[in-house]
Amino acid sequence: MSTIFSKIITREIPAHIVYEDDVVLAFLDIKPINKGHTLIIPKLHSEDGLACDAATMAHIIEVGQTIAHTLKATLPCDGINFIMNNGAAAGQEVFHTHLHVVPRHSGDNSFEHAKHVTYENGEAAGLAVTIKTSLA
Amino acid sequence: MSTIFSKIITREIPAHIVYEDDVVLAFLDIKPINKGHTLIIPKLHSEDGLACDAATMAHIIEVGQTIAHTLKATLPCDGINFIMNNGAAAGQEVFHTHLHVVPRHSGDNSFEHAKHVTYENGEAAGLAVTIKTSLA
Repeated sequence: MSTIFSKIITREIPAHIVYEDDVVLAFLDIKPINKGHTLIIPKLHSEDGLACDAATMAHIIEVGQTIAHTLKATLPCDGINFIMNNGAAAGQEVFHTHLHVVPRHSGDNSFEHAKHVTYENGEAAGLAVTIKTSLA
Repeated sequence: MSTIFSKIITREIPAHIVYEDDVVLAFLDIKPINKGHTLIIPKLHSEDGLACDAATMAHIIEVGQTIAHTLKATLPCDGINFIMNNGAAAGQEVFHTHLHVVPRHSGDNSFEHAKHVTYENGEAAGLAVTIKTSLA
């Protein structure tokens, strides 16, 4: 499947590339949460982080750690979010696996507080058993 | 350093555990974004995802993929966020590395739209060069 990210990999569309190796490409997000917000994508297409093979995911997160250290030192910034949205329902907009590396500054309020839900009495215990059994 | 997560690992504090192996423990978040929201933590303490060793990070994300598939099938849900907040400025509250695996439902509006910033003309290009040079 071809997306805008495939075209960045092939240089058909320009991007501000910060890192590249045989497996991944990293470039500045064009709609940054904060300046320096970087996306890391695998060169081999996969739709999202559930479809991406484990070795590639491991490499993406390792490059994410390296870029995070660099952003903290060079921007500088105070914290880093690693975010991967998988599926349109999770906010994914480009259907090619990508890790957001988001520089954060104390008090930047980049993200509003998320909404939360509550479990009924005993519900969490029951759900944990269901998930645990499905994983076994 | 001891945190509430250390005490969950040692069973001093109860949790709804869904998965465990030699390297990680996974349990339901007590303040879930949606039901089934799971945290994956390394048993060996590290403060955040920048301090955690790469092999452990790789295992955390691989277990995250497995749990994500299980949540999609069993809850079910439509999408999954993988989120790791590193540093108080990034919203981290417990200073022991943890990956959030957040089930999402179409239209749940769990997260408000994030704020964005814009680059001045030429600023992104210059910043990309700075980051790329620091990474080299």
